[in-house]
Amino acid sequence: MTKDEYHYRFANGLVLLGEPMPWLESVAVTIRVPAGSVFDPEGKEGRAVFTGEMMLRGAGSRDSRALVRELGLYGIHYAAGVGTYFAKFIFSTVSGQIGKGLELFADIVRRPQLPASQVENVRQGLLQDLRGLEDDPGLRLVRELRRAFYPHPWGRPASGEVESVSRLTLEDIREHYQRYYQPDGAIVAVAGRFHWPELLELVGEHFGDWVGEKPPPVPAIFTQVRYRHFPHHSQQVQIGVAFAGPSYAQADFFPAWAAMAVLGYGSTSRLFQELREKRGLCYGVGASYHSGRDRGGIFCYASTSADRAQETLKVLLGEIRRLGEGIRAEELERVKASVKSALIMSQESSAARAGVIARDWSLLGRVRSVEEIRQAIDALNAERINAYLQAHPPEGFVVVTVGPKELEVDGEL
Amino acid sequence: MTKDEYHYRFANGLVLLGEPMPWLESVAVTIRVPAGSVFDPEGKEGRAVFTGEMMLRGAGSRDSRALVRELGLYGIHYAAGVGTYFAKFIFSTVSGQIGKGLELFADIVRRPQLPASQVENVRQGLLQDLRGLEDDPGLRLVRELRRAFYPHPWGRPASGEVESVSRLTLEDIREHYQRYYQPDGAIVAVAGRFHWPELLELVGEHFGDWVGEKPPPVPAIFTQVRYRHFPHHSQQVQIGVAFAGPSYAQADFFPAWAAMAVLGYGSTSRLFQELREKRGLCYGVGASYHSGRDRGGIFCYASTSADRAQETLKVLLGEIRRLGEGIRAEELERVKASVKSALIMSQESSAARAGVIARDWSLLGRVRSVEEIRQAIDALNAERINAYLQAHPPEGFVVVTVGPKELEVDGEL
Repeated sequence: MTKDEYHYRFANGLVLLGEPMPWLESVAVTIRVPAGSVFDPEGKEGRAVFTGEMMLRGAGSRDSRALVRELGLYGIHYAAGVGTYFAKFIFSTVSGQIGKGLELFADIVRRPQLPASQVENVRQGLLQDLRGLEDDPGLRLVRELRRAFYPHPWGRPASGEVESVSRLTLEDIREHYQRYYQPDGAIVAVAGRFHWPELLELVGEHFGDWVGEKPPPVPAIFTQVRYRHFPHHSQQVQIGVAFAGPSYAQADFFPAWAAMAVLGYGSTSRLFQELREKRGLCYGVGASYHSGRDRGGIFCYASTSADRAQETLKVLLGEIRRLGEGIRAEELERVKASVKSALIMSQESSAARAGVIARDWSLLGRVRSVEEIRQAIDALNAERINAYLQAHPPEGFVVVTVGPKELEVDGEL
Repeated sequence: MTKDEYHYRFANGLVLLGEPMPWLESVAVTIRVPAGSVFDPEGKEGRAVFTGEMMLRGAGSRDSRALVRELGLYGIHYAAGVGTYFAKFIFSTVSGQIGKGLELFADIVRRPQLPASQVENVRQGLLQDLRGLEDDPGLRLVRELRRAFYPHPWGRPASGEVESVSRLTLEDIREHYQRYYQPDGAIVAVAGRFHWPELLELVGEHFGDWVGEKPPPVPAIFTQVRYRHFPHHSQQVQIGVAFAGPSYAQADFFPAWAAMAVLGYGSTSRLFQELREKRGLCYGVGASYHSGRDRGGIFCYASTSADRAQETLKVLLGEIRRLGEGIRAEELERVKASVKSALIMSQESSAARAGVIARDWSLLGRVRSVEEIRQAIDALNAERINAYLQAHPPEGFVVVTVGPKELEVDGEL
């Protein structure tokens, strides 16, 4: 059991994190439980997401209707989302209602009713969501690029497939809930206006006597993918290119992140300037960094018309490769200014901060303060980044396209 | 010339609004100029949006590249968006850079280069955007429902059509810019950390000597639409139903808004509970209120599978009509709690507040304080709302669908 000013580990392994923002009237809470889609058995893809949805359909003594009614009555704005490793439950409310919020969410997380009467209803919703996703070429690309890039089952879409979701039973859901919802590795992160001793007591009251055993680690199965195409009846072609980078916990993370930002973050980036502004090849173009606990990746996207798709892919890959030649100091200065300003603005939102401190804890086992990140950004310089890029030039590309016709990729890789 | 604590009207008609949030480190600015798509001549649809995009491609002495570079260098996060009546330019930055931000945006708004070299590039981007929109059935529905509901040209999509955007020339763009970018009716709204006398001086310096003539009012041409269907190669059917409500400036706005919220705002709403939770007819369902200066409307949406679409439409219209029978006090209590909590949270974001005070000024000619809105919500009661609903039961429905097949609508209306 360890205790620090704004973090506390309970005997059952649950960690409470706090970030005081006393100038706000609101408070935001993120609850993370290691019960994500990575634990779905083969053939039962979507089980973790299905379980997360079912948990909101009645909890404790309240049935589905009574639960949403009560959340509404206390002005609690909430969302649930099950990701790869964690199931997340998020809520915001005025500071005075934090106790009520924790009480209701302890019921949802620890005493869900998982009623048989809601199974078909939830299933229909999830199936419609999956079909809606199939109608959207941009979302399909994100889904398939992650699947192609990450090892199995870490890249598998959390929402599952139409076939597997159609077959899931209430027994599957209950099995997932009973096996994976437990306190060890779970995080309750609170940002906004709160009184720490009172918060500690409330969380202890609602989650302190929770028991259960941590799930075993999930192995990662690697397959080398170079190109996958998904036919889609659309006017636009969506192009995605992914390549590896350090994880958030690794020493090279900040230099690699800054190089990605020069490449594709915002409208001053090389991709935006070269593909959109100078060549007019595409409208939507950019890059983002995604990091799990063990590995990270840079994901580049461009959406363009069918007749420009081949050239767009060529120029996109050319710009990514050119990053290996290094960046200029002035490119870095823009990124630093932009990121520091974004950092300052993001720390002003309680919901954003609650999400960030929970993520930091799960990836690092500690919280990086805004000040620490500011210093890490200030310390970046072109020499350091170029040394990183020289040692790790972008390579091992995974390409995914969604659109009316396949591209010629072999010659480009 | 009038002056109040945090608003000031310059001699040229430009209004400066401020909302101090001294606990923040950031500042957010919204600039609105009455130069929106409603002024596009027939056959030149999309001209205002085209002009707005061109304005970011170089301004003052900076060409396109130098402009984005400088915005990046000062950590200025920005966006431009041209709507029906107003063209909007939005930026956020750390409080110390407000002067630089205003200087750059005065160049963008008053001295854009509108260079011939960027025309084809901007056009390709806009055309790709239009085609991407055609690939997305949900966005198509929103676009077509507004067009069917509002009088012409107020419901016309700002982004224009592929045909009109393909034909626009640099001369068209320059004509739009010269005729409509002027200070009378323009608004500069600032929220966050600022020093009012300094802000007043900065805005005076950059915008005080701007001259020009306000555009004449645009007439509204009404056509009665009952149903329009747009074939789309998708698995889902998107259904939209719109009906009239008071505008934001009218006395009945708050009761009508609350009735809409009971109907379709969030997961405690009737539409969500009845269509999704109880009947499992659809996954995405809800309603929103949209108000212009002269008229408002309630827009209801549902997305569902083709085989459930006809039943979804029937139940959706049934729920909307049932609203005319009135609401229960407990339904209102939930809406009030939820809205007050959302109001408190939204007032914590400088970007949100800058947007809201600018919108208030343009719709009302004054700003409704958070306290005033809180009081208006507190004062709502079921009797008042039911009196409104009895006098104005939902009727005159406009139905739009996007999907694989047309629905049978005549029998439902």
